[in-house]
Amino acid sequence: MGRVFNFSAGPATLPEPVLESAQKELLDFKGTGSSVMEISHRSKEFTEVIQKAESDLRTLMDIPDNYKVLFVQGGASSQFAMVPLNLFSSRKKADYINTGQWSKKAIAEAKRYGDINVVASSDDKVFNYIPEISKDMFDPEADYVHITTNNTIYGTTFPSLPDTGSIPIVADMSSNILGQVYDVSEFGVIYAGAQKNIGPAGLAIVIVRDDLLGSALDITPTMFNYEVHSNAGSLYNTPPSFGVYLAGKVFEWLADQGGVATMEEINREKAGWLYDFLDNSKIFESTVKDPFRSIMNVPFVLPDDDMNAKFIKEAAGVGLMTLKGHRTVGGMRASIYNAMPQAGVKKLVEFMKKFEMNNQ
Amino acid sequence: MGRVFNFSAGPATLPEPVLESAQKELLDFKGTGSSVMEISHRSKEFTEVIQKAESDLRTLMDIPDNYKVLFVQGGASSQFAMVPLNLFSSRKKADYINTGQWSKKAIAEAKRYGDINVVASSDDKVFNYIPEISKDMFDPEADYVHITTNNTIYGTTFPSLPDTGSIPIVADMSSNILGQVYDVSEFGVIYAGAQKNIGPAGLAIVIVRDDLLGSALDITPTMFNYEVHSNAGSLYNTPPSFGVYLAGKVFEWLADQGGVATMEEINREKAGWLYDFLDNSKIFESTVKDPFRSIMNVPFVLPDDDMNAKFIKEAAGVGLMTLKGHRTVGGMRASIYNAMPQAGVKKLVEFMKKFEMNNQ
Repeated sequence: MGRVFNFSAGPATLPEPVLESAQKELLDFKGTGSSVMEISHRSKEFTEVIQKAESDLRTLMDIPDNYKVLFVQGGASSQFAMVPLNLFSSRKKADYINTGQWSKKAIAEAKRYGDINVVASSDDKVFNYIPEISKDMFDPEADYVHITTNNTIYGTTFPSLPDTGSIPIVADMSSNILGQVYDVSEFGVIYAGAQKNIGPAGLAIVIVRDDLLGSALDITPTMFNYEVHSNAGSLYNTPPSFGVYLAGKVFEWLADQGGVATMEEINREKAGWLYDFLDNSKIFESTVKDPFRSIMNVPFVLPDDDMNAKFIKEAAGVGLMTLKGHRTVGGMRASIYNAMPQAGVKKLVEFMKKFEMNNQ
Repeated sequence: MGRVFNFSAGPATLPEPVLESAQKELLDFKGTGSSVMEISHRSKEFTEVIQKAESDLRTLMDIPDNYKVLFVQGGASSQFAMVPLNLFSSRKKADYINTGQWSKKAIAEAKRYGDINVVASSDDKVFNYIPEISKDMFDPEADYVHITTNNTIYGTTFPSLPDTGSIPIVADMSSNILGQVYDVSEFGVIYAGAQKNIGPAGLAIVIVRDDLLGSALDITPTMFNYEVHSNAGSLYNTPPSFGVYLAGKVFEWLADQGGVATMEEINREKAGWLYDFLDNSKIFESTVKDPFRSIMNVPFVLPDDDMNAKFIKEAAGVGLMTLKGHRTVGGMRASIYNAMPQAGVKKLVEFMKKFEMNNQ
């Protein structure tokens, strides 16, 4: 079968030109006569790959000089431990905002290492909104405030960052990094698993303000210590080199598209088509209301489970794949990250229209 | 340039048919219309990939049923912490044998979590041998004995496993797993970073006897807990799916070659050609004596650094790449893992002969 439109929440679709370029040089990277997977991570060729990836990411996100960029192994699940292990002071206190299953996992892991205060939660309504937050809710003694900027399962996004005063914000940005513009200087740490908007699974990116480095707890495994990776330029050990290489290609592709601000415009347009249709449909319904709607993950439901199943099956029949929603929300979910072309969303909306006509 | 013979110690050369097969299906995995990197790790298609990879590895290594096979993120450096965090009892004692830089790193990391006794070391002679070991050297209270079966930098291998009585042996087998036959039942844990004999960097394989699971220290990050990965069939979080997929292809290729016993024969033949030449050369010298010689990594030296540099340069000129030795040993090192064809070693030996004729 030809390439489909793949709405998977992660691992997610990658830009086709990136895959084509990787395919072309898979057995011979830049005339080395070897695959990029087969060359030393300390070779001149790979050094160029990782340095250019970092430099391109810095440009794309306008990362200030006092922030380090780390390419590390694992995904967000490893960061759930790395954040408290690296950021706790002797107080070992942090404030978390619970906006979904991934926030919950981050909270559970952090609780193993210190006092975690859940300052707000949207658990009461299956996480279909972002709770209201005011500065006085935070413990002035907290070492950091943790948020999940975009909630993959529930399709919600923080409409604005909470005002935490001088407490650093730590953000799990796995599902919307590079999909919309953020001011990095408003964060202490940004982390993201690669497999949604960056590259293949097994790689995470950490952007950390340099004053937050250097005070990891004694029990921190060396491989979980941000400072170790920072001091080694992400080459303390053999990095997931193919992942870094592909991420670098994605960064180049993003720059070619016009950068993150342009991608955000395109993403808002793509999401807009879906939300406009959903808001005017008699049978489809969006599960999230403005201003909390994600432009990356759009969950929606039909009146009953049989209809949902029918929709998912018929959509797959025309090459609109992986639209099944998470079991906690049910229905459907269209993940429309940077690499989902406008044509894919157009085709989906057209298909939904037809489905509605045929099933009223 | 066409494909070269790449003697890199790791990331190392992969079997060409594996890369060709991955290349072919990079944009469309088995008719899904997506890359294997773009599909959910919980999809039917990927479940088949990871289950077949495990099953093929079990066949290749004849892994008994009471051992679990885990595919985890990171490499041996993560295991240096995971081993003590998972295997320490309340005594927190372990015996280590120091046979090189990687053993030293394993020791340093384990010391952060308990009492480590270095029972023997070959540090006195730049690790060019394996120390003699007798059963009475081990602390009967040790939770495990750690060895590095093959020492990549120094080109040494344990000629036989130490007799540790009932104390489980934990082996870092990163550089000779699947390259020679081991009886898995003699080990408590075998671990290996993928990037030498298995697949791309970012993946490690852990083979652990099931009675050793379930008593990780409280401070163990969830992602470092063997039991968590075991209970989830290595799908607790998104695994490095492209790495697992390529490792699976390598396992299939190994089975096609005849399995590990056949590979060991071929590897002994390849290494034999090099050692025979070295032992009869007037200018080249092997840095390791029998019975400690590795069949995976063969270091050798010429009389002086200028000659070494000349050799490495001229070898690269004829497509024999990455022969520079580690700085602690100097000279050259030919890493001839499973994926290095016999033709590559033949060409290297022929080139060494010519070099000797021209430089006597």
